[in-house]
Amino acid sequence: MMRADSGSFLGRLTVIGVGLIGGSLARALRTAGQVEEIVGCGRDPDHLRRAVDLGVIDRYSTRPEEAVAGADLVVIAVPLRAMRPVLDTMRSALPAQAVITDVGSAKASVVADARASLGDALPRFVPGHPIAGTEKSGVEASFPDLYRNRRVVLTPLPETREDAVVLVRRLWRIAGARVTEMDVAHHDEVLAATSHLPHVLAYALVDTLSRWSDRDEIFQFAAGGFRDFTRIASSDPDMWRDICLANGEAVVAALERYMEDVRQLTEAIRQGDGVRLQRCFSNARDARRRFLAMLEG
Amino acid sequence: MMRADSGSFLGRLTVIGVGLIGGSLARALRTAGQVEEIVGCGRDPDHLRRAVDLGVIDRYSTRPEEAVAGADLVVIAVPLRAMRPVLDTMRSALPAQAVITDVGSAKASVVADARASLGDALPRFVPGHPIAGTEKSGVEASFPDLYRNRRVVLTPLPETREDAVVLVRRLWRIAGARVTEMDVAHHDEVLAATSHLPHVLAYALVDTLSRWSDRDEIFQFAAGGFRDFTRIASSDPDMWRDICLANGEAVVAALERYMEDVRQLTEAIRQGDGVRLQRCFSNARDARRRFLAMLEG
Repeated sequence: MMRADSGSFLGRLTVIGVGLIGGSLARALRTAGQVEEIVGCGRDPDHLRRAVDLGVIDRYSTRPEEAVAGADLVVIAVPLRAMRPVLDTMRSALPAQAVITDVGSAKASVVADARASLGDALPRFVPGHPIAGTEKSGVEASFPDLYRNRRVVLTPLPETREDAVVLVRRLWRIAGARVTEMDVAHHDEVLAATSHLPHVLAYALVDTLSRWSDRDEIFQFAAGGFRDFTRIASSDPDMWRDICLANGEAVVAALERYMEDVRQLTEAIRQGDGVRLQRCFSNARDARRRFLAMLEG
Repeated sequence: MMRADSGSFLGRLTVIGVGLIGGSLARALRTAGQVEEIVGCGRDPDHLRRAVDLGVIDRYSTRPEEAVAGADLVVIAVPLRAMRPVLDTMRSALPAQAVITDVGSAKASVVADARASLGDALPRFVPGHPIAGTEKSGVEASFPDLYRNRRVVLTPLPETREDAVVLVRRLWRIAGARVTEMDVAHHDEVLAATSHLPHVLAYALVDTLSRWSDRDEIFQFAAGGFRDFTRIASSDPDMWRDICLANGEAVVAALERYMEDVRQLTEAIRQGDGVRLQRCFSNARDARRRFLAMLEG
């Protein structure tokens, strides 16, 4: 796959789903001069033409089975609900040596789709998840540095070929990411806790407040803390519905665990138990300090 | 109180509690050239000397009854639990015409303290709450623009003198704030919803995750969304314990209302009810858009 003639890491890259995530990866590889040709694929020709105009992709097709022709690597960056139809459609057209990866925020559902669809191409499929993004979406929001110093988790299966993992790991490193491997179930639990749970909580808070008797009056007295706390509630509702459905079991488990802790904290407030409140708040502040140090370190 | 000779709005201002909130107000008035002298008061002489060195105050006393001597206006910017002792201590030394205000995040408890302590000075007390702040604390974190375009809510009592309200309103306007009046109970409910509730939720989330079986490993896979969501969990734990205790009833009511909504959302995830999830998430995103427009407008 290394093209000695051009010095590029990749010959032809196909990106199915040219939004914030797929678009930013394409931009990163292009900026690094590590890909000869990028083919985009999606449902909306207008959107794909914009991606060409922006220089994110070289050309496009709206048909996956056409877009993957001659690809060395196929990155599937579509919403989780579109995973299975995309895999089914492109399957028969996949080049014999092409490596496939995805960027889904929940991995068990993607793996189930891949197992059901990919057949003997399964060993060349490397499930992946870049832990990066903003509350914006669309190719216009994409930028080459999105993955710089961000984590990417790969969750290879027992049957995944090692050379496929090596290729995908290298891809993300070129984009500036730090790559970790994890098993599928552990990934889904960790992300349910650190990402899916906060999103549900933020959505729920804004939704609850918007239906408060005062309606929007209430937002007039919210400050910067509220804005930051709820930033993730500006994320794409369709995408997050999909994630909650795809990773339902782990998200429900995280929600129940969290709500039990909140219930106890509520009881402490009701009883005026300042010691308990102080202990919880101090522990949280200290843990967040360690988290920030980790994020920067 | 207007000093015609100097053109300053205020002669002597006493700030009890020279931290982020009290210090930023002092800086704002000084920057505007609207105060002749600022006297600071607090428990820690080192801290107060630092405030003098930083130019935030002109001089200081560690004794409230000394610090309020000759004051035209006294701003009490201490943690809620210190409110009553401060009022009791300074009460007998208050100049006969001095106006008093505070900055507490919960108002019913402050009003109860004032009623119990201030006697015939009560009509000159204007309960107030600047809705501004950062997760930082201390005079070093103070800056004159903290209140620019921020809301300040005043909750005058039936017995509060109108000229006292006018003076305090003017004070905050000089600092760049937009001043609103509200009744005490309404203030405490609205702030429980938009500020106290999110703080408890953010503290609880970081606390819960830090006690997850993976402990800090989990934070390695958290991203920018998590950082923003939990920023308020870096706030001063003592201050927030005080707020939760002082505004306990409204905070518990807000928590219960929120938890009921989260319970229903959890049920929707469990049942794979994508329509319901999508409706909640979309409504939240739209409400947050209106909130942002409001914040900027």
